Amino acid sequence: MRVAVVTVGDELLAGDTVNTNASWLCERLAARGARVERVTTVPDRVSDIARVVNEYRAEYDAVVVTGGLGPTHDDLTMAGVAAAVGRELVEHEEALAWLTEHGGYIADELAEGTAHLPARARMLPNEEGVAPGAVVEGIYVLPGVPDEMKAMFELVAEEFDGEETFTRAVVTSEPESGLLDRLRDVQAAFDVTVGSYPGENVRLKLSGTDETEVEEAAAWLREHVDVVPAEE
Amino acid sequence: MRVAVVTVGDELLAGDTVNTNASWLCERLAARGARVERVTTVPDRVSDIARVVNEYRAEYDAVVVTGGLGPTHDDLTMAGVAAAVGRELVEHEEALAWLTEHGGYIADELAEGTAHLPARARMLPNEEGVAPGAVVEGIYVLPGVPDEMKAMFELVAEEFDGEETFTRAVVTSEPESGLLDRLRDVQAAFDVTVGSYPGENVRLKLSGTDETEVEEAAAWLREHVDVVPAEE
Repeated sequence: MRVAVVTVGDELLAGDTVNTNASWLCERLAARGARVERVTTVPDRVSDIARVVNEYRAEYDAVVVTGGLGPTHDDLTMAGVAAAVGRELVEHEEALAWLTEHGGYIADELAEGTAHLPARARMLPNEEGVAPGAVVEGIYVLPGVPDEMKAMFELVAEEFDGEETFTRAVVTSEPESGLLDRLRDVQAAFDVTVGSYPGENVRLKLSGTDETEVEEAAAWLREHVDVVPAEE
Repeated sequence: MRVAVVTVGDELLAGDTVNTNASWLCERLAARGARVERVTTVPDRVSDIARVVNEYRAEYDAVVVTGGLGPTHDDLTMAGVAAAVGRELVEHEEALAWLTEHGGYIADELAEGTAHLPARARMLPNEEGVAPGAVVEGIYVLPGVPDEMKAMFELVAEEFDGEETFTRAVVTSEPESGLLDRLRDVQAAFDVTVGSYPGENVRLKLSGTDETEVEEAAAWLREHVDVVPAEE
C-alpha cells in the first residue's frame, strides 16, 4: 500500500515546530507494511490543502492528513479535504452525537464548525480531545495535537496493513566512499534494499520482505566491513 | 520570495530520522524574509526527485533541496535535479579543483560521482564535508548531513533576503473555542496574521511586516485574554 502524508500548518513552515507527527506516522505506517512515498507540509489555506490532497489521492492508495482541526479561523483542513473530494462540509450528526454522549458537550455550546465534516464521511472520535477526525475516499484526517493524532491513528491503523518489511542495520567506521564495492556486492547477492547514511559513522540499513534474506545480507555485511558495535 | 523545501531520503519516509533539517531551514528562511510554501520529502529515486523539483521550480521563486549527495548508490539528488532542469550531470571542474586544493583530495582517488553536478551549475563548496552542493536555475542543492547543510546554507543565505516578518506570541490559559471573538477582533483591528496553536495552553502567534502593528496587536491581545506568562 502506497501512502502520502500531508501535514497542515503555518507553524511547521515557519520552523516553529519540528514535524515529529510526520516521523511518528511514517514509522507506524512502515511497521504495518505500508510504504510512505511523500510527506508534504502545506500552509493553513483551503486551496493549498485541497490541491495537494487531491493530487495525492489520485496517485496513492491512501492519504493521511494531520493538523488544522478545531474551531479557530486557521483550522481549515476539513474545508480543504471537502473541496478536494467535491463534497459539502456539513454538521455531522454522528460527530455531534459522540461529542454530546462521550464529551459531555451540549450541542448549542460547541464552537461553530467543530462537528463539521465532509458530507457522508466516516467520523473518527477524538478520544484525547474534542475535534473529530474523518475518513473519506481513502483520505484519513487526523488532529495535529500529537496525543490526539496518535490515539486516533490507532483506531484505523489496521486499515494500512500490508506486506511486512524487515530491517537490519550495520554501523561501520569505514568512510562511505570506500564502501562502494561491498554495497554493490551485497545488493547483487541478496534481495534487499540498502540505504547508506553517513554521520560520525556510516549506518547501512538493509530492508526487504523476506526476513531470512535480510538477516543473511546483514551477516554478510558484518563479515565484510569494519563494524561498530550497536549501542542499543 | 516564495520558497519550497525538498528533503530527499528513504530514512525520513521510514520514520528513522526526524526532519530537523526542514525545521532549521524553515526558520532560517523565515528569518531572512522568505516565505516557505511547501516542505516535501521524497524517496531516493531520480524520477521522484526530478518530478517534485520540476513542479516546484515552476511554481516558486526558489527551491532548496537537501540530502542524497555523496558517492553511494542511494545518493541520487544531483541526477534528479539535472533531470528536472534538462541538463547533463558532468564532472565539474571547479568542484574537482576545490576538493583538490581545500580537501587535499587527489582527483583519481575521489569516489566516482562526488564531483558530478548538473552542467554549468554554480558549485557550493562543502566546508564541513566532501560532497559539493550546487545552484542551478533557482534550485539550491545542499547535503543532508546537518552540519554540512547548515554551513553550506549560510554561503547563500543572503540570496533569500526579503521583507522582514515580525512575530509576537501570546500564551493564554483560555480554551481555544472561547477565543473566537477576540481572534476575530484582533484581525479586524490590526494588519496581522494570527495563528492559534492548542496544547496544554493555547499559543497565539501574531505576525506581520510592520513591527509596530504586530506589537500593538499583541498588546491588545494581552489586555483581552487570560495571559500565561512566557517561559523564555
